[in-house]
Amino acid sequence: MGPASTRATGSVGLVETQYADLPEPIRLDCGRDLHPVRVAYETYGTLSPDRDNVILVCHALSGDAHAAGLSKTPGESARDGFGAEDRDGVAGKGLGWWDGMIGPGKAFDTDRYFVVSTNLLGGCRGTTGPSSTDPATGRPYGSDFPVITVADMVRTERALLDVLGIERLAAVAGGSLGGMQALEWAVLFPDQVDAVVAIASTHALHPQGVSWNAIAREAIMRDPAWQGGHYHGTGRAPDAGMGVARMVGHVTYLSATSMGDKFGRRLQDADDIRYTIAEPDFQVESYLRHQAATFVKRFDANTYLYTSRALTYFDLARQHGGGSLARALDGVTARTLLIAFSSDWLYPPSASQEIEDALLAHGKPVEFQVIDAPYGHDCFLLEEARQTPIIRRFLGGTAA
Amino acid sequence: MGPASTRATGSVGLVETQYADLPEPIRLDCGRDLHPVRVAYETYGTLSPDRDNVILVCHALSGDAHAAGLSKTPGESARDGFGAEDRDGVAGKGLGWWDGMIGPGKAFDTDRYFVVSTNLLGGCRGTTGPSSTDPATGRPYGSDFPVITVADMVRTERALLDVLGIERLAAVAGGSLGGMQALEWAVLFPDQVDAVVAIASTHALHPQGVSWNAIAREAIMRDPAWQGGHYHGTGRAPDAGMGVARMVGHVTYLSATSMGDKFGRRLQDADDIRYTIAEPDFQVESYLRHQAATFVKRFDANTYLYTSRALTYFDLARQHGGGSLARALDGVTARTLLIAFSSDWLYPPSASQEIEDALLAHGKPVEFQVIDAPYGHDCFLLEEARQTPIIRRFLGGTAA
Repeated sequence: MGPASTRATGSVGLVETQYADLPEPIRLDCGRDLHPVRVAYETYGTLSPDRDNVILVCHALSGDAHAAGLSKTPGESARDGFGAEDRDGVAGKGLGWWDGMIGPGKAFDTDRYFVVSTNLLGGCRGTTGPSSTDPATGRPYGSDFPVITVADMVRTERALLDVLGIERLAAVAGGSLGGMQALEWAVLFPDQVDAVVAIASTHALHPQGVSWNAIAREAIMRDPAWQGGHYHGTGRAPDAGMGVARMVGHVTYLSATSMGDKFGRRLQDADDIRYTIAEPDFQVESYLRHQAATFVKRFDANTYLYTSRALTYFDLARQHGGGSLARALDGVTARTLLIAFSSDWLYPPSASQEIEDALLAHGKPVEFQVIDAPYGHDCFLLEEARQTPIIRRFLGGTAA
Repeated sequence: MGPASTRATGSVGLVETQYADLPEPIRLDCGRDLHPVRVAYETYGTLSPDRDNVILVCHALSGDAHAAGLSKTPGESARDGFGAEDRDGVAGKGLGWWDGMIGPGKAFDTDRYFVVSTNLLGGCRGTTGPSSTDPATGRPYGSDFPVITVADMVRTERALLDVLGIERLAAVAGGSLGGMQALEWAVLFPDQVDAVVAIASTHALHPQGVSWNAIAREAIMRDPAWQGGHYHGTGRAPDAGMGVARMVGHVTYLSATSMGDKFGRRLQDADDIRYTIAEPDFQVESYLRHQAATFVKRFDANTYLYTSRALTYFDLARQHGGGSLARALDGVTARTLLIAFSSDWLYPPSASQEIEDALLAHGKPVEFQVIDAPYGHDCFLLEEARQTPIIRRFLGGTAA
């Protein structure tokens, strides 16, 4: 197989999201058992006879199972996530959120690998979450849904793979919250993961990131339409607060530099300011409003709350190392690839550096690459061309 | 007079806010005339017989006229602004928001200067603003208050000084939005300003800063209790949205580093996470909630909207230079001191650098100092000891 640059890359084509009902309850970190649990997933490529070519791809806060190809039921796309949609106008056309990374000849090469992508536990795109029916009441859980962790998401993914008859992963990969899941996999199931690809991620979000997430959740919960989390069926939803939450998130996914390049201080009306408080006057203000309006149409506010909470709770050192990251990673056997982006201030390269240091302290195989790019956290969705050769070379080292 | 380090510094003592009713309407940038206008102000030190020792101090978004000394009517202090209150426990004790900078032997030395501090136009602490009575209706203006600009604030300050019989300023000084006012003074009234001290400020907020302000305003306006801006007298106020706005602002005033140093990822309950969505679990989350709760008690939401809008509109190049900052500053005659802080990502040193470059292009006297300090934008309130010798030396060059 030649290098990526000399091969044509392609699409996985039309895909359809599938659903699996897990046979057993999921035992959650909080102590509760969750049942029933349905998982939405997609697969791309062909499972090898030895079932040894599986890559699990994990999504970020606002993603879903539709990671690659064209959806048979196109609608609002999770590719809207992180502002990536503007780049090539694919929003709403049903293209998977990581289509540039998954497919024939791509970073996660479906000519070689069988790629599985799921909607995470707590999601609103097919997997059981707060908008699912609570068997105890027959109504949507709302805020009665148990508080979940990244480890709970991983246990759910483990259970889905059991249903699919898959024991081992050649790799588990993801960006941001997806990278947290990948790292958690390597810790929880060290004997079942050959390689980890954690992109624009961290072992524990820094306090400023914790704050942004807290503010986003406050914006949702302070919206009277949230109704204590039981808004389903009331004809009202906390769209106003969700919009604010999304705007906060969106700015943290970009960089000051890229916002400067993209919007500057350009006004809506080129002539002059319009002396308006209630209406957007700068183009960037209008853009943020648009992002908010689009997002609330496709995403459930409670899923946002639960997922945001899970990613702030994620802390490998606290969970697994008694405060020590090195101890937490002591049992990892997977080879690890860490990729970070120079302009990502939400998941800065320093966090990946700490992971590398902790793995190296145990002599674990790890590769860390910082890509110099201006688009902030969004880079993990935008800088596909520069991640691809790194990931292909890294995965080439696995037996597959 | 010896250097600051060898002199004891003191307090201006007990002070009382005064009020002046302007005799003429203020002609606003938006084309409307505003009348009546009352201005809240305080003075510290003694006006010289020649009235040539006046320093005007301008406050930032959440400040007020009480800049120094102890208020005779203590209440919630504007020193709460920007998180400075935690440092020495002075919150609510009536200490002025820049007390460390104004007083005998301090940066703005009241042994030498007569310092005037006003609450800005549109304010909610004594100067006419959206919560003032609209003479046309007999009710509070609310969102019928005209959209104001930084230049309108400066014209109001000019009018107050006329009432006080003060023609010239030995200096005009401020941080953040206060620095914008200082720069605007030098452009609007070049013959009446000897020196400008603009700290942690800019000639035009960058698009990320515009975004944070837009999000804060959205949070307020999307609160149903805002009621289109006419919440006064209804028994409801957009406290929920204001709280979110304040949290957004607060995080932008700090730095990721200082948040890490101050809070880390410490939990409220040292033992473990409590698996809660609705309640704060990290100490930084509790801190932000406290900041929000404190702020909404002392500040009017509409004033926040109007002031935030004014500071995003501020753009010296657009207003005065046809897009060119150098042209906008062409008429400045004041000596200018610019101070910025290395960790301030909201008003980064690069913005002050652009001002220095534009002034130097015309051969204008300008001094630019970057102070290496970790506290973000808050530094202008916190790093008093390091600003003091710079400011004293700079002001020492003026005839006074």
